Amino acid sequence: MRIGILTAGGDCPGINATIRGVCKTAINYYGMEVYGIHNGFRGLLDDEVTPLTETSLGGLLTMGGTVLGTSRVKPFRRGKASAPENTPAALMRTIQKHGLDCLVCIGGNGTQKTAAKLAETGINVVMIPKTIDNDVWGTDISFGFDSAVSIATEAIDRLHSTASSHQRVMVIEVMGHKAGWIALHSGMAGGGDIILLPELPFNIHNIGDVIIERLKKGKPYSIVVVAEGIPTLNGKKAAQYIAEEIEYETGFETRETVLGYIQRGGSPTAFDRTLATRMGGHATELIAQGKFGRMVSLQGDDIVSVPLADVAGKLKLVTPDNDLIVQGRRMGVCFG
Amino acid sequence: MRIGILTAGGDCPGINATIRGVCKTAINYYGMEVYGIHNGFRGLLDDEVTPLTETSLGGLLTMGGTVLGTSRVKPFRRGKASAPENTPAALMRTIQKHGLDCLVCIGGNGTQKTAAKLAETGINVVMIPKTIDNDVWGTDISFGFDSAVSIATEAIDRLHSTASSHQRVMVIEVMGHKAGWIALHSGMAGGGDIILLPELPFNIHNIGDVIIERLKKGKPYSIVVVAEGIPTLNGKKAAQYIAEEIEYETGFETRETVLGYIQRGGSPTAFDRTLATRMGGHATELIAQGKFGRMVSLQGDDIVSVPLADVAGKLKLVTPDNDLIVQGRRMGVCFG
Amino acid sequence: MRIGILTAGGDCPGINATIRGVCKTAINYYGMEVYGIHNGFRGLLDDEVTPLTETSLGGLLTMGGTVLGTSRVKPFRRGKASAPENTPAALMRTIQKHGLDCLVCIGGNGTQKTAAKLAETGINVVMIPKTIDNDVWGTDISFGFDSAVSIATEAIDRLHSTASSHQRVMVIEVMGHKAGWIALHSGMAGGGDIILLPELPFNIHNIGDVIIERLKKGKPYSIVVVAEGIPTLNGKKAAQYIAEEIEYETGFETRETVLGYIQRGGSPTAFDRTLATRMGGHATELIAQGKFGRMVSLQGDDIVSVPLADVAGKLKLVTPDNDLIVQGRRMGVCFG
Amino acid sequence: MRIGILTAGGDCPGINATIRGVCKTAINYYGMEVYGIHNGFRGLLDDEVTPLTETSLGGLLTMGGTVLGTSRVKPFRRGKASAPENTPAALMRTIQKHGLDCLVCIGGNGTQKTAAKLAETGINVVMIPKTIDNDVWGTDISFGFDSAVSIATEAIDRLHSTASSHQRVMVIEVMGHKAGWIALHSGMAGGGDIILLPELPFNIHNIGDVIIERLKKGKPYSIVVVAEGIPTLNGKKAAQYIAEEIEYETGFETRETVLGYIQRGGSPTAFDRTLATRMGGHATELIAQGKFGRMVSLQGDDIVSVPLADVAGKLKLVTPDNDLIVQGRRMGVCFG
Repeated sequence: MRIGILTAGGDCPGINATIRGVCKTAINYYGMEVYGIHNGFRGLLDDEVTPLTETSLGGLLTMGGTVLGTSRVKPFRRGKASAPENTPAALMRTIQKHGLDCLVCIGGNGTQKTAAKLAETGINVVMIPKTIDNDVWGTDISFGFDSAVSIATEAIDRLHSTASSHQRVMVIEVMGHKAGWIALHSGMAGGGDIILLPELPFNIHNIGDVIIERLKKGKPYSIVVVAEGIPTLNGKKAAQYIAEEIEYETGFETRETVLGYIQRGGSPTAFDRTLATRMGGHATELIAQGKFGRMVSLQGDDIVSVPLADVAGKLKLVTPDNDLIVQGRRMGVCFG
Repeated sequence: MRIGILTAGGDCPGINATIRGVCKTAINYYGMEVYGIHNGFRGLLDDEVTPLTETSLGGLLTMGGTVLGTSRVKPFRRGKASAPENTPAALMRTIQKHGLDCLVCIGGNGTQKTAAKLAETGINVVMIPKTIDNDVWGTDISFGFDSAVSIATEAIDRLHSTASSHQRVMVIEVMGHKAGWIALHSGMAGGGDIILLPELPFNIHNIGDVIIERLKKGKPYSIVVVAEGIPTLNGKKAAQYIAEEIEYETGFETRETVLGYIQRGGSPTAFDRTLATRMGGHATELIAQGKFGRMVSLQGDDIVSVPLADVAGKLKLVTPDNDLIVQGRRMGVCFG
Repeated sequence: MRIGILTAGGDCPGINATIRGVCKTAINYYGMEVYGIHNGFRGLLDDEVTPLTETSLGGLLTMGGTVLGTSRVKPFRRGKASAPENTPAALMRTIQKHGLDCLVCIGGNGTQKTAAKLAETGINVVMIPKTIDNDVWGTDISFGFDSAVSIATEAIDRLHSTASSHQRVMVIEVMGHKAGWIALHSGMAGGGDIILLPELPFNIHNIGDVIIERLKKGKPYSIVVVAEGIPTLNGKKAAQYIAEEIEYETGFETRETVLGYIQRGGSPTAFDRTLATRMGGHATELIAQGKFGRMVSLQGDDIVSVPLADVAGKLKLVTPDNDLIVQGRRMGVCFG
Repeated sequence: MRIGILTAGGDCPGINATIRGVCKTAINYYGMEVYGIHNGFRGLLDDEVTPLTETSLGGLLTMGGTVLGTSRVKPFRRGKASAPENTPAALMRTIQKHGLDCLVCIGGNGTQKTAAKLAETGINVVMIPKTIDNDVWGTDISFGFDSAVSIATEAIDRLHSTASSHQRVMVIEVMGHKAGWIALHSGMAGGGDIILLPELPFNIHNIGDVIIERLKKGKPYSIVVVAEGIPTLNGKKAAQYIAEEIEYETGFETRETVLGYIQRGGSPTAFDRTLATRMGGHATELIAQGKFGRMVSLQGDDIVSVPLADVAGKLKLVTPDNDLIVQGRRMGVCFG
């Protein structure tokens, strides 16, 4: 059995750990071969494929990013991000040339869709979900999320110093275009006073009122955590928009921080390392059992798998009845 | 409704966050009063009780340890750790004196037993599990565990430098008297080559063989992670015993590190902060609903509660079919 | 002897440690009294003064920001940032009202100027330099700098993951309006390929060439560290300007990150804690010896003091012959 | 010009950064060749030598330990740690075989002595000091020290949680056989109440008194930081001895932690990375200028060099008039 493995979409902590998990299990336990496909689906189209051996895996457990490289090339999609020859035929050529019996695709929502289409075309596919945004449907948690939340929380911790020393409002923008999971978890873990998510509508006047109310209670500073994907006016970025509006509403000195790419870099947390490792091992087990067209998934504390056809194209969003929101509201956190 | 809250047993990251969760929810949302009982059950016996207000809660989310103080006094147990007057009557006097309608007991296995006995005597009790060891029966995870695993993993990461630079075997002892959860998770997250748990028997000759086998594969160093509670000879501490045996078996230079108390200190991880916060909020909700004699619990991603009578006195141990062990073995990790 | 102590200008890690150093030495060793003046010079104008005792100092060593609060009010400057009554007379009233024998002013360049003017008017002043920017003239290093460099370096470390995984150019903007110390040190410590400082002219075409040259050597990604104060066009922020120009020059996918306020927050590094502590202790020693009109200073490994009149109004900038620049150039780092 | 480079003695953070500094400057700027000698002086005796190229240097800046490997083999010393053929003749054979024009020896006190002897025998030697202990004579600071102090300080920070929660005395043992620099700096940075160094005599009764005195002032807990090299009785380790004595003297519950090898592992701090980088670059500059028999040195903020003959065999110890000790005493820290 020869496995081809690729990583697609945005990089995130834990990808290398899951590659290591796949390879060690495949090579050590099942005696399979593993070939690395470089730069995501682009490498399948352009035939960038090299064999992986145990010695390729040194240091992977703790290393951020992906040693295989990644790209956002979508082989089934026309247009800008796709090469001219982005066709199943090109993919097939590479797969056959190297005698790959199956593909392990590590990625997020886009990869989920592509993997489902590959499965439809008859290719043996197993997908492992990875995303800092935690918005992949079909798994409780994706690795990368815990690391991103940790980094964002540490950043919010730091802002408390300045907020209280200068009696300012500090607005911090974290990642999350459609899903506010990072904002919700880092906001709650970092003691945010106001947390704004793409999924929940907010009233800017209300936010101003909350900040003024805090002043009256002797707290002349506030921490506002916003997801990048919240609606704004005039194309402004989330943090800038909210900071300007708060300054207008309250007259308080307000400062913004956009956390940006540091959320997705660096060594994964212990949590993400074990999750990524387990998912990698489970993917190889699925292959050994001939179970294809499936995505590895965390459900409760169990690693299981779900059919790609059932989950592809869906997005896991924060819902208003999320326990952390319900608890947060009761504790006085404003969600809009 | 007036709540008395206490923390008992060993301190761990997240206790203050859960105290904050209980208090903010109780005071802000339910309009209850909260009284802090100092130094665990000793404070109930000795009447060390002070009211908590919102201003008492500043900075608690991120702070390690417990602001209420803790002790290992067990009111229902005779002998060394208990004061002469450790009787339900003494507890009752303090509870009645301050008009406490219920108790929130934050603790581990010992506290679980005591809380169950308090419930039997008719006191309104809600328990919140906390332990770095993760061995409390009835909850998937206790807060404190993720923080302890993170610290231990970071320590193991550091040992890799020395192990590979000096071509040594490095043995690190982490906490866990009866349960090897920290060793298992930090060992896997830190890339341990050999991981020894109290729950799994090990053969010291086999461990020597594994280390020699690694040398033959070009890896003249190894990382060995041991839980403090593994069986040893002559009363030796786990790390010392294993290091000596490995040196005897293999002739390799072997060094030991006992991680000790730094595993339980410092600011909780983001994961532990949200878990602790949610559990605190849920405890207050139970009180508001008049549901007593229960322990707050994480099951999957849900915060629920279980009857204390069902869980008290049991210990959650690692079993050989644990997924992380199964996956680890396939990846070449030696568990004994 | 009664000391008044205030913190002015931007907050930075180590301020609380130096406050602790002043107070502990003054109270424990010299038997002096210390009064805290809140919110910088505004507190002197508005009479926001409270006594500090040893119990006020708990936890200060590790705490970010300043417990005394700060402001940018400049008592000798007319205009926007100054209250109507910003006159030496108002300051004098507060000083006399509380019987303060001397002032300890903790701040950066602005505070240095104000402290020098206070000294001219006959007030007993000792200044302690603090700034993350490290641009205070008269001291080798100011506390806060090492912490800021550490945070920035960790952020750059994280960007390497994404840069190499996506084969991108990552531009990171760190603090430093006029002085590029943070960019220089974090850029070198973080392995930046291109480092741009306000003090050194740069040629954007040359930067493009360097990036293309790296590609030819098999490095299809680059890390660019820029100080916020480098010259840009059309009022663009440093990172945005450089990222756009690089993308234009090279056609490479380029992403920007503005590190912002998290550089000045959170617990100080060990280095900053001991430096801040020593400076605080030395300030008190100067007071005990009646040496006023001086700024505490690190010279080599010695804590000394210099006359405020000699240093006020000067700015410590990076010079082209700085050893780190010279060494960096030889190692292939591009500084413009 | 062909350089041979080796690392000897205990590993420490920053060695790889200094190797990178040497190589990048040598290869990029001076067009020299660099050969890596593996496992310290053992590699010179056993001819373990491989050429280093720029591609060997990837990731070295941030990596702990030493990629060249290290050993404690002393070629001029008879006895246990030395191979039978540890003679200058064997060294010379390897040097001549590979046409090495000079040696860069990266190490601590032992390496300093060996390097001085090599220089006496006419070999072109440049030494770069590295040690977490900071006890190398002839340089203000060695890289590795700041990283070790940071790790130890973070550990002490964590112990505060447990100390205050349980009202305990926590004793932490940090590295330092003869020199107490780590204990002094981490003890002061971590807010240690009692700090014991090998260089300063202490009175155990006095320590007990200090702890009891703290209780009387409302502080029923204490943090004690001890260097491993303080004198003890009956061959006990430092932490154990002090903990037992304190418990005997005071009756307080006392717990010990031995920090151990994690102090020397992991990624160097930003401070150590720039120091190591500069020292590496400077070493190459010395070679280019034909200045041999010298050790690179930090003096104030300048990187300079000193003759090996002047510094070899001396040890840089903490003296009682050290400013940090003087300031610490005034602030109430007990040094014995």
